[in-house]
Amino acid sequence: MRTTERVRKILDWYEGDPPGVKANLARILMHGKLAGTGKAVILPVDQGFEHGPARSFAPNPAAYDPHYHYQLAIEAGLSAYAAPLGMIAAGADSFAGEIPTILKLNSSNSLATSKDQAVTGSVEDALRLGCAAIGFTIYPGSEYAFPQMEELRALSEEAKACGLAVVVWSYPRGPNLSKEAETAVDICAYAAHMAALMGATIIKVKPPTAHIGLEAARKSYENVDISTLTKRVQHVMQATFNGKRVVVFSGGENKGLDALYEEIRGLRDGGASGSIIGRNTFQRPKEQAIEMLGKIIDIYLGKD
Amino acid sequence: MRTTERVRKILDWYEGDPPGVKANLARILMHGKLAGTGKAVILPVDQGFEHGPARSFAPNPAAYDPHYHYQLAIEAGLSAYAAPLGMIAAGADSFAGEIPTILKLNSSNSLATSKDQAVTGSVEDALRLGCAAIGFTIYPGSEYAFPQMEELRALSEEAKACGLAVVVWSYPRGPNLSKEAETAVDICAYAAHMAALMGATIIKVKPPTAHIGLEAARKSYENVDISTLTKRVQHVMQATFNGKRVVVFSGGENKGLDALYEEIRGLRDGGASGSIIGRNTFQRPKEQAIEMLGKIIDIYLGKD
Amino acid sequence: MRTTERVRKILDWYEGDPPGVKANLARILMHGKLAGTGKAVILPVDQGFEHGPARSFAPNPAAYDPHYHYQLAIEAGLSAYAAPLGMIAAGADSFAGEIPTILKLNSSNSLATSKDQAVTGSVEDALRLGCAAIGFTIYPGSEYAFPQMEELRALSEEAKACGLAVVVWSYPRGPNLSKEAETAVDICAYAAHMAALMGATIIKVKPPTAHIGLEAARKSYENVDISTLTKRVQHVMQATFNGKRVVVFSGGENKGLDALYEEIRGLRDGGASGSIIGRNTFQRPKEQAIEMLGKIIDIYLGKD
Amino acid sequence: MRTTERVRKILDWYEGDPPGVKANLARILMHGKLAGTGKAVILPVDQGFEHGPARSFAPNPAAYDPHYHYQLAIEAGLSAYAAPLGMIAAGADSFAGEIPTILKLNSSNSLATSKDQAVTGSVEDALRLGCAAIGFTIYPGSEYAFPQMEELRALSEEAKACGLAVVVWSYPRGPNLSKEAETAVDICAYAAHMAALMGATIIKVKPPTAHIGLEAARKSYENVDISTLTKRVQHVMQATFNGKRVVVFSGGENKGLDALYEEIRGLRDGGASGSIIGRNTFQRPKEQAIEMLGKIIDIYLGKD
Amino acid sequence: MRTTERVRKILDWYEGDPPGVKANLARILMHGKLAGTGKAVILPVDQGFEHGPARSFAPNPAAYDPHYHYQLAIEAGLSAYAAPLGMIAAGADSFAGEIPTILKLNSSNSLATSKDQAVTGSVEDALRLGCAAIGFTIYPGSEYAFPQMEELRALSEEAKACGLAVVVWSYPRGPNLSKEAETAVDICAYAAHMAALMGATIIKVKPPTAHIGLEAARKSYENVDISTLTKRVQHVMQATFNGKRVVVFSGGENKGLDALYEEIRGLRDGGASGSIIGRNTFQRPKEQAIEMLGKIIDIYLGKD
Repeated sequence: MRTTERVRKILDWYEGDPPGVKANLARILMHGKLAGTGKAVILPVDQGFEHGPARSFAPNPAAYDPHYHYQLAIEAGLSAYAAPLGMIAAGADSFAGEIPTILKLNSSNSLATSKDQAVTGSVEDALRLGCAAIGFTIYPGSEYAFPQMEELRALSEEAKACGLAVVVWSYPRGPNLSKEAETAVDICAYAAHMAALMGATIIKVKPPTAHIGLEAARKSYENVDISTLTKRVQHVMQATFNGKRVVVFSGGENKGLDALYEEIRGLRDGGASGSIIGRNTFQRPKEQAIEMLGKIIDIYLGKD
Repeated sequence: MRTTERVRKILDWYEGDPPGVKANLARILMHGKLAGTGKAVILPVDQGFEHGPARSFAPNPAAYDPHYHYQLAIEAGLSAYAAPLGMIAAGADSFAGEIPTILKLNSSNSLATSKDQAVTGSVEDALRLGCAAIGFTIYPGSEYAFPQMEELRALSEEAKACGLAVVVWSYPRGPNLSKEAETAVDICAYAAHMAALMGATIIKVKPPTAHIGLEAARKSYENVDISTLTKRVQHVMQATFNGKRVVVFSGGENKGLDALYEEIRGLRDGGASGSIIGRNTFQRPKEQAIEMLGKIIDIYLGKD
Repeated sequence: MRTTERVRKILDWYEGDPPGVKANLARILMHGKLAGTGKAVILPVDQGFEHGPARSFAPNPAAYDPHYHYQLAIEAGLSAYAAPLGMIAAGADSFAGEIPTILKLNSSNSLATSKDQAVTGSVEDALRLGCAAIGFTIYPGSEYAFPQMEELRALSEEAKACGLAVVVWSYPRGPNLSKEAETAVDICAYAAHMAALMGATIIKVKPPTAHIGLEAARKSYENVDISTLTKRVQHVMQATFNGKRVVVFSGGENKGLDALYEEIRGLRDGGASGSIIGRNTFQRPKEQAIEMLGKIIDIYLGKD
Repeated sequence: MRTTERVRKILDWYEGDPPGVKANLARILMHGKLAGTGKAVILPVDQGFEHGPARSFAPNPAAYDPHYHYQLAIEAGLSAYAAPLGMIAAGADSFAGEIPTILKLNSSNSLATSKDQAVTGSVEDALRLGCAAIGFTIYPGSEYAFPQMEELRALSEEAKACGLAVVVWSYPRGPNLSKEAETAVDICAYAAHMAALMGATIIKVKPPTAHIGLEAARKSYENVDISTLTKRVQHVMQATFNGKRVVVFSGGENKGLDALYEEIRGLRDGGASGSIIGRNTFQRPKEQAIEMLGKIIDIYLGKD
Repeated sequence: MRTTERVRKILDWYEGDPPGVKANLARILMHGKLAGTGKAVILPVDQGFEHGPARSFAPNPAAYDPHYHYQLAIEAGLSAYAAPLGMIAAGADSFAGEIPTILKLNSSNSLATSKDQAVTGSVEDALRLGCAAIGFTIYPGSEYAFPQMEELRALSEEAKACGLAVVVWSYPRGPNLSKEAETAVDICAYAAHMAALMGATIIKVKPPTAHIGLEAARKSYENVDISTLTKRVQHVMQATFNGKRVVVFSGGENKGLDALYEEIRGLRDGGASGSIIGRNTFQRPKEQAIEMLGKIIDIYLGKD
């Protein structure tokens, strides 16, 4: 299938990046059931690192196996699969060329004394393993935000020079942010904006709530409609270079399917580029996960 | 248009820097409506990083788009445009060669727990993107001042060896400085002086007030006339190598136009090299911003 | 389309290479009309460098334009497009992600006093431009063979560490080889074997004739059937790790279409992995070239 | 003056290069009397290195002074000035920002025992001195062609990563090329084509004669009209990516003014991007040179 | 099986080398049917590179397949398997850990105009592929001997720093050596001695004849008994640090089995460390080769 006009237009937004970065973004946007639509659904599997294996995989023990996630992402027709070094490496040969992969270069864990993330992979790893992109998490609002941004800066420069796309997980948290504030619409838009300013090719944020997290920002939202998820997502997209960046939204906490589909419709109607959904997928039996992902893809295709 | 005598004289002040730095300074001083006058008006767009997207761009949503700022700076006939990596990169190709750009290499944000800034760009980025200068903020008086100065030192050395000019935002703040002290005339002059001592090509400070911020300095100001903005700016210019550095003043908080123009007249009469005005410009509709900038330029041209 | 069993089997042959190399080989073998068959037809455009622009493109002036070759390769449904730096770069952005590209890293030319090739590109270029492979020519039998092999060794090591495939043009020539010997079956098999020993991912040789080029080898061929092209190609495939390398054959001199198709059938029946055809394609009007390539692809598909 | 549509279109041809390279190409194409037309007239002063000072400057002793050439290029409204390290450095400060400069990185001389060129400058020099481009000579056909190409490859990669444009002097010569062949239309087109393949931003060749230099190419020219300079230049432009590279032609041997103007008209009508004229300019008194260059510029402007 | 006293004693000879080198030498000496005896039989397959595929493998076509040689060496209970990059890589994964491998880092070929060898692999390759040693050929007496020695020096230094053993093929040849002289006892001893002096861990030479190759050496042999192969091998062993290096002897030209066994007995009785036999093995059907190798091993075990 040839690159569609829609995808070509998206590539053109990234005018400051070398052709290799665009080629890898095209690999993601031209893969799977959403190929060519400018939309993407991505499977992230960093739960094991973050929450431990049993909390992640006991609900569906098949998911302990690294090959399971490759298979799930491929069979469901997703756009890409993201995970830390060990998970990607453990299937990189068996599934070479079958699905674009994103090597997550930093990781947190639940045993850590620090709320930071450790750098656990390299650009060289991503190249050697045939990945299309690197992934990196920043925690705006945390005491680690600045060192994380500086790590991201260096890795991003190196990755782009090698033609790799850069996916940034921008997850606000920290001493001055309440749990509610972490997903507040202003904070979410701010987090997405900062990722764009740092040069992210794809930005991952959480679906924004109607909460306002930064008191100083409240006045600015008087004339911004944030009454519905759709409106809030429109605002987040606007905050990422007037909609000229690929922004995908996490699936968030495990929830009922109807609630999830409704949320996806809200994301879609707000102009989101897609979803990146981990727990909600791999913690279900594979057929159920594939059915659910098929439904989500249908929503993005406007069929539902 | 050939380099004017005035601009040539300014270039001669920078005798310790290689010709490339002067050439890039000349690019800025010979560009736009103030070309050749030795004056400069610069558009800085780091508000999005510092205060978040909605606080920055909701008043004029067109400004969410990175191309908007290039267009605004070009259409208004400004001297240069400064912004962080993502913003500069997103228009670097479309507007290649149309206006000198300044890549802001560090950035703060309102979510941060630290009052520091993160390094978010590199000299290589500036070269690759065709910039005329790098920009860097230091906070004299803060607990981050020394590490920031040391980062500036290293980046400045690297940038100048590559012929890039160095624009330093010197913004005093810190535990021993009251809000009032941050713009006190002695502090402002001191901040400008330190930037000059660190080798800045262009120095950005805030318009100084008649306040004295450092008790130990009060006696020294007994015979310095700081009664008017013009006199205070004369003092700041004197403090930057007897007027032999390019010093531009920020527009500060959003204020009424008449107050702004009056301030610009004060800056001009005090010998300021120009203004660097963000919020006051991009938060207005483009035609209004262009009209306002035209007026400011006229003031610097002595037409008003 | 998922990687077929046939392609998966081919990837398994390259067990000493990192997954990224296999992923890029998969990109080539899963692209175009031959996707999944284990066969490949590649468009090489290094004629301009080797023979000059008019000799290459005057028969079909549209081919002077770098975009033409991208379009031809894409529209004809080929597996990959190979060319030197300037040609690849001039379309790398416009056609990002549309067809796997092979950056030819060395080039000869008809004005040269030396029969060597100059290195005219780098692995960094290939990554930056989003290529799937590097290409390199060696001339076994020439006085440049050893330095060329050593250049190939270094570039190949660097490329594979970055996940790029390595395509080796192995073209025997030199003071001890007559024109006839250059395509002799023993020499051709030897050239292919050496490329395999050096670690080539894809090997390009010329269709072998029934001639024997190395007197010392004649006895060894007493019991090898080299009576038909098919038999000779079988031997060449055998000589490349018992058929466990991808070997593509050049189209050779411009010839009549019937003769060309007949040759392709011989290659196919001998187990060749495919063809790499330059002059015979881009020196015809595009529709004729596409028709011819369609026919060749049909032959490899066993439809003709 | 804003970048014209014509120049913007030219910048778009260089899609594989970073924005900085385009910005520097724009600096050249938007400078001087031809600004915005897509045409360029460049002053090269490498004669002193190549032929010695007296042969170069005795006819007009003012030209011994490095400042003279800057002044000449500026006063005549040229697009750029090219020279070796010492010449550029000796005026880089005095004329900073006044005219785009091209640092010639290799040089030959008449005392040399070798027909090669020595590398006499670096990319770092070009950056430090504020140049818009590096310049490099290759001699296709000579025994030094391959090492020269490999030097060019490395310097070009480095220069472009720093946003500098790359100007290639492609001057065929060597044991198999007669004096006549050096400017033969096929050889000239070939030399220009190779420079384009190596990634040159601007290509400099000599005006082609109706001679055919490579016997093997003669047949290919049977249907190419090379009867007039205009037709031959059309062919050279075609040979450089179907007219999608900036190609400037040298002035060649000192000749009468009428002959020179006539030649320029031929170049212009053939679609040449402009001229690069050394001896014919700086060996005349300045006023005469300026008058002559004004006339040449008028020809490119279509006024003559 | 624990390292035997005999092998421990051998390891102690290499006291200047780091433990990793000894550990890899131990891997070879503790592997296969000769494990622990201090003897070794090694399979070398560089024939394909040196003589071409048909001359090497047509007598036993199964040997075209790289896996064949791994299987042969493993099934015959050999000590190690040596081959160039492509051959080793093509089975490195399938046979990981099954037999110590030696990566041959340089190779000659029958098409070459030069009698040198090309470097075709690296220490990094050897490490990445899990090899126990690198192999390198020098031609003492040839015009390439010094550059080869210098290459060996550098590669050896690098290999040993990484704990790899170094196997040196020391094959005298050159303008001053007759065919007979190449295997003359003095020359052979000299070649082995130089390899030892260069730091070889294992030395490979040809079985010495009673010929004297260097006239100047003849006198020195007056009182050395060189009347039998056994005596000559004793002399070669003496020449390699009084028997304190592992020296293996090649099988030489294809010959009758009885003659071969007789030669092995001579080597054994002279104190040789073992044999390295290529053509005589892989050019026979596998069962015959295994039978032959079993017999040779029995000879070294003193059973025959």
